[in-house]
Amino acid sequence: MENGSARWGFRGNEELNVASGTTIRGSLTNLMENLDKDDPRPTVPLGHGDPSAFPLFRAATAAEDAIVDAVRSAKYNGYAPTVGILPARRAIADYLSRDLPYALSPDDVYLTTGCKQAIEIVLTVLDRPGANILFPRPYYPFYEAYAASKCLEVRHFDLNPEKGWEVDLQSVEVLADENTVAIVILNPGNPCGSVYTHQHLKKIAETARKLRILVVADEVYHHITFGTKPFVPMGVFGSIVPVITLGSISKRYILPGWRLGWLVTTDPNGILCKLGVVECITGCLNMASDPPTFIQGAVPHILEKTGEDFFLKVIDILRKAACICYDRIEVIPCITCPNKPEGSMFVMAKLSVSLLEDINDDMEFCLKLAKEESFIILPGLAVGMKNWLRITFAIDPSDLEDGLARIKAFCKRHAKKQ
Amino acid sequence: MENGSARWGFRGNEELNVASGTTIRGSLTNLMENLDKDDPRPTVPLGHGDPSAFPLFRAATAAEDAIVDAVRSAKYNGYAPTVGILPARRAIADYLSRDLPYALSPDDVYLTTGCKQAIEIVLTVLDRPGANILFPRPYYPFYEAYAASKCLEVRHFDLNPEKGWEVDLQSVEVLADENTVAIVILNPGNPCGSVYTHQHLKKIAETARKLRILVVADEVYHHITFGTKPFVPMGVFGSIVPVITLGSISKRYILPGWRLGWLVTTDPNGILCKLGVVECITGCLNMASDPPTFIQGAVPHILEKTGEDFFLKVIDILRKAACICYDRIEVIPCITCPNKPEGSMFVMAKLSVSLLEDINDDMEFCLKLAKEESFIILPGLAVGMKNWLRITFAIDPSDLEDGLARIKAFCKRHAKKQ
Ligand SMILES: Cc1ncc(COP(=O)(O)O)c(C=O)c1O
Ligand SMILES: Cc1ncc(COP(=O)(O)O)c(C=O)c1O
Repeated sequence: MENGSARWGFRGNEELNVASGTTIRGSLTNLMENLDKDDPRPTVPLGHGDPSAFPLFRAATAAEDAIVDAVRSAKYNGYAPTVGILPARRAIADYLSRDLPYALSPDDVYLTTGCKQAIEIVLTVLDRPGANILFPRPYYPFYEAYAASKCLEVRHFDLNPEKGWEVDLQSVEVLADENTVAIVILNPGNPCGSVYTHQHLKKIAETARKLRILVVADEVYHHITFGTKPFVPMGVFGSIVPVITLGSISKRYILPGWRLGWLVTTDPNGILCKLGVVECITGCLNMASDPPTFIQGAVPHILEKTGEDFFLKVIDILRKAACICYDRIEVIPCITCPNKPEGSMFVMAKLSVSLLEDINDDMEFCLKLAKEESFIILPGLAVGMKNWLRITFAIDPSDLEDGLARIKAFCKRHAKKQ
Repeated sequence: MENGSARWGFRGNEELNVASGTTIRGSLTNLMENLDKDDPRPTVPLGHGDPSAFPLFRAATAAEDAIVDAVRSAKYNGYAPTVGILPARRAIADYLSRDLPYALSPDDVYLTTGCKQAIEIVLTVLDRPGANILFPRPYYPFYEAYAASKCLEVRHFDLNPEKGWEVDLQSVEVLADENTVAIVILNPGNPCGSVYTHQHLKKIAETARKLRILVVADEVYHHITFGTKPFVPMGVFGSIVPVITLGSISKRYILPGWRLGWLVTTDPNGILCKLGVVECITGCLNMASDPPTFIQGAVPHILEKTGEDFFLKVIDILRKAACICYDRIEVIPCITCPNKPEGSMFVMAKLSVSLLEDINDDMEFCLKLAKEESFIILPGLAVGMKNWLRITFAIDPSDLEDGLARIKAFCKRHAKKQ
């Protein structure tokens, strides 16, 4: 009993474990534990979107060069200013302005350690007792996990699979009340693979304006589109409603491990400044960890020197992979994709458990699939949709073919005998 | 009124601004605004400890090489595991074990984006309604700012300037009660420049054991000692009481902008695991931003290849600078240093406002000094000691001489005429 736990005055914060267990990292850890260690086949990792491990998706040399130059210059070893160094903020302002009807100023841009920290900051800034915020369902669970650690009440509006996963604006209007602070929009969408039209985005902006709430636009998948619709940033409608845009180099530049993102106020009318939101963003960043200064120093070079050919190549691979994924799933009776993915790196597929013999839900499906086929995909429950599956296709297409063959065999084996 | 602020449903989180205004960054921003833009002399930045801007303190080439190799390998572009990549954790475990009577395992080590994030994590892990935590005074204000954003009640124990800024253990015993979770110790000390003896650290550990509280040891200035006392890590006493050690490469390696730190459980009895603290650290990191993966990849190389000569050179410069600082201040009547600094990059000096004509407190002193002499130092108030000053000497010694001459002239000008 000498060091018995009963006698110490501290313990771990339990609420935190509950919140963090709902992240994708948390869910995948569970699935990984279910893999059969004796299975000689390589694990097919369709659980999360990180193509960087595949040689096919190797980052642009220009990005590597930018880091090497920044480090060798020894100009960026010191602490950076709270909001990020000016040349990096200016480069991001210029980069994003290309798609906007007005020019962003460097002062609109705040550097963050990935889009993830940008999410953390926007939720902290909006947090206050009694406030509520509107998130889509299906969702990217980091939002829920982070909101759970704050006092923000989360209300979910539905995305409509019959209409390309568009926002159900009627349900948004029903959910919102005088304590609603913001609506979060993910475009291109994770987990749906959706891309919203100019028209739909405008309607969202108008609805938000009517409700007098902020739009938070998670555009971490900006320009990752390979269907017929081009990427339109929400900031285009910044004069209708103030927009806070979140992004990073993780997806388009295939550099998730570099942890470089941004939070941008796309708000030509300056409403966010008047309401104290801008001041509060700086206050929040004062207490947060900055991206390493030399990575900030490399930003202008990364954004200016990465060639169009790199992006075209990536989009081309993703387009092919999305087709393979959609086509192979089409012939599996118990799984259906309502939409061919047009952007991001994911697709949602519906599981018909009634066609399966000995599998009762998506979680059981994913656990057995991990065990029997060394194949990891995310149960829909983890993104708020029971009996759906979230599949990423951002892997080498030949691995994808192999993986989908395994899923097919698995479904056949577990199908109800007629 | 069209976009009038009254009509929007959101605003910035005001509590946050209060918390973040108390950080050193917040205080320095105020002082900087007071600089006289027409003063042709370079600003002397003795407000915060970042020597990296001075060529004399340039980081080791081995560290730069490590980054270049990691980036060029393209092996580290992807997301890292929550706790950090294994080779980096192992390298840090080995590095810290050199100073300990037992060997750390890689599982004891968690990578963080600087020591700052390690502080954030330990406070989040310990946070619970009703809990209190013991911080030293004078303090490193980021602790207060972060605790203010949580529900942790802060209680300050005094450091004794008459006894080399040792912890007043009697006041610790008086402050602690059954809701106290931990005591935070900074060694080598910011802002005091103190280095604790083996004996004093052991007494702290014994007191904490008696009170059944955790010791959080901020050792971001590990091995930055240039007096007679060697650096002794608190983890040496891990078998008396569980210790969580926080550190980074910011100070010893003069790489503050690289944002690479660690949180380490130095707890050979495994108490932290039994109490759920270890699980909770992982949970907390699940939601946090990791250090960029390629910087993690560079860690083994940085720690193993940075030569002893680099450290010796840095310590030598700091020793000289500390002497200059102490000696020059000794001859200024209105400022006294109770102790010659022996470690870290700071010294606390007492201001005798009664000897000054038209200056009423430390804040006014610092504001006028900024305006009249382009000289930035931190008012003691910012670290919890009114009418003291926190001075860093971690700059080029020749700039330091110049700066201290300005302070002397300033004090003379404002001295009471006899
Ligand atoms: C919708 C969405 N937002 C944010 C992130 C986090 O991005 P980052 O790697 O830039 O932190 C992801 C990562 O997968 C994501 O899918
Ligand atoms: C006592 C103390 N702890 C932590 C930190 C933060 O260190 P890092 O740069 O590793 O985040 C500092 C920085 O000055 C410090 O003085």
